[in-house]
Amino acid sequence: MLNSTRLTNVIEKMTTDNLLITDPLSVAYLCGKLVEPGERFFALLIGKEIKSVLFLNQLFRFDGDLGLEVVYYKDTDQITDVLKPYLDPTKTLGVDKIMQARFLVPMMEEKLASQFKLGSLAVDKTRSIKDAKEQELMRAASHVNDLAMAKFKELIHEGVTELEVASKMLGIYQSLGASGYSFEPIVAFGKNAADPHHMPDDTVLQEGDTVLFDVGCIVNGYCSDMTRTFFYKKYPNQQQVNIYNLVRQANENAEAYCKAGVRLCDIDSVARDIITEGGYGEDFTHRLGHFIGTQTHEYGDVSQAYTDLTEVGNTFSIEPGIYHSSILGCRIEDLVLITENGCEVLNHYPHDIEVIE
Amino acid sequence: MLNSTRLTNVIEKMTTDNLLITDPLSVAYLCGKLVEPGERFFALLIGKEIKSVLFLNQLFRFDGDLGLEVVYYKDTDQITDVLKPYLDPTKTLGVDKIMQARFLVPMMEEKLASQFKLGSLAVDKTRSIKDAKEQELMRAASHVNDLAMAKFKELIHEGVTELEVASKMLGIYQSLGASGYSFEPIVAFGKNAADPHHMPDDTVLQEGDTVLFDVGCIVNGYCSDMTRTFFYKKYPNQQQVNIYNLVRQANENAEAYCKAGVRLCDIDSVARDIITEGGYGEDFTHRLGHFIGTQTHEYGDVSQAYTDLTEVGNTFSIEPGIYHSSILGCRIEDLVLITENGCEVLNHYPHDIEVIE
Repeated sequence: MLNSTRLTNVIEKMTTDNLLITDPLSVAYLCGKLVEPGERFFALLIGKEIKSVLFLNQLFRFDGDLGLEVVYYKDTDQITDVLKPYLDPTKTLGVDKIMQARFLVPMMEEKLASQFKLGSLAVDKTRSIKDAKEQELMRAASHVNDLAMAKFKELIHEGVTELEVASKMLGIYQSLGASGYSFEPIVAFGKNAADPHHMPDDTVLQEGDTVLFDVGCIVNGYCSDMTRTFFYKKYPNQQQVNIYNLVRQANENAEAYCKAGVRLCDIDSVARDIITEGGYGEDFTHRLGHFIGTQTHEYGDVSQAYTDLTEVGNTFSIEPGIYHSSILGCRIEDLVLITENGCEVLNHYPHDIEVIE
Repeated sequence: MLNSTRLTNVIEKMTTDNLLITDPLSVAYLCGKLVEPGERFFALLIGKEIKSVLFLNQLFRFDGDLGLEVVYYKDTDQITDVLKPYLDPTKTLGVDKIMQARFLVPMMEEKLASQFKLGSLAVDKTRSIKDAKEQELMRAASHVNDLAMAKFKELIHEGVTELEVASKMLGIYQSLGASGYSFEPIVAFGKNAADPHHMPDDTVLQEGDTVLFDVGCIVNGYCSDMTRTFFYKKYPNQQQVNIYNLVRQANENAEAYCKAGVRLCDIDSVARDIITEGGYGEDFTHRLGHFIGTQTHEYGDVSQAYTDLTEVGNTFSIEPGIYHSSILGCRIEDLVLITENGCEVLNHYPHDIEVIE
């Protein structure tokens, strides 16, 4: 059903007359209908002076009233023909950031609007402020992730490969009530942990290896995302402990700094300065965090590029890392929620150095 | 490594001076480097009079020479600034169909080309003609799918739910050498089979139910896709047999019609006419098939909308279905490969009516 509060919030932020939204999760956010259209066109048209219209391939026909007009089209229809009766060529049209060129270029060639602009921010900013019900769902998803992390550790034993461990994670998540992964899990042993985007492969676990899990699941449509770095059978050496503790300090100081009204770039700086002062600034190669909700990566980064102020209801990751191929690859990540009183850390799995025996 | 044969084939088909390709599988097809960039910009620029350039976030930095220039950028860089030195504002620029508005709109606003056009066809058409090595890989992927179909049947027993069956499929595929799904499997019991896009849910299997599996896996980067409709414990009644046989006839006649130089829409008609003459034309609600390769859905449909002629090396699905909610939902799908001599059906799992006991 069309959520009029959310719709009003989006329309207030719009900088164009109308906005055509193609992100299925944004459409679901606004009208409660989740469709996975694959490569087919699926969009919600909203505006200050028009009634909302949903465009959907007839293959996805559904019963029930969403409180808006639904326009069905066929595979053989031209999308520009389908849209034309609903667009005013004298008005500006916002399109969201993931609208594909296959739809956008023909719309421009047919001049279906006076001007086309990126209009994502209106809906992305609205989605970035989780309401009370969404906050509860974010807590629930991270709670499952905490429970799962403890179980993933039990998959670790002599001779196991990263892929073998990864292949058992989905079943564990499902047994805990998750519907699936929020992203493909990263399982990285030893030097592989020094690649922040390592995908699980046939690497066999060896004594003394690092074991990095960057994992997340979806529970009732909301995502979790957490990283822990363990050690297998051997306590880390002094250089490794030094790196681990820098990453931990960066994580915890950044989380302690989080509250409403601070700049995202300043949260990034809190963590980055600690790692830089510790001598590993060059090895912290990515942003500190990203916003998260019904998608793992939503609009908004905790990085030097984002000077926006945090708001109550924001949920994002805090995930400093040091990737040093000859000493240690390490990342410690939690999700946080900005509250009236500061910040709630949604993950409770400890940050202590832990050796898996 | 840059594949000069493929590159030449794409450049010959280009209708713009330069082409910016963002589809990771198209980039991998041309230069052998597969990256999953998530929401980050990743593109290959090619053209008749320029050297090829790959644009990649530094997070995905790699060693080795691909035979082209690699330009790394940081999360904090503006993509238009990264592209500007490599684009000539007096030339036309093709963009591929999945290029997102978040990149395209700023490129247009900064006037990085004299004109922007959809340029996918050049690369999509080239990809649609599988060379000998690719044909071998397509055969191998469908062979695994044939083996898997026989094993999926063994998951069927009293009281099982669709989700329980679906959750075991990945492990079976992996045990047969696949790296993963080519798409989330469709497992549909009873009336659910009458929804062509049904997603597995908690529906419990009952005696007399239809059991529809629409499944595929990836083997060495190439996709399979096959559908079979079984019956659980009861032989179908006369109306059901009638529908099943119509779908089977539509499948087999369409496959027999396939050879190089026929129109895709005419293949669709062969199947559609049989179902329409059988009285169920309204219940065959989708195209007959889609092209497939390193992606499950590649450019090209076997539908009324595509008048292109088939070429040797094309691989696509033939998947007629009848979706009648009160009698039967049924689909029978194989992959085919257009050869010098006609058509090779890549799936060998039988089409006969089969009752699972």
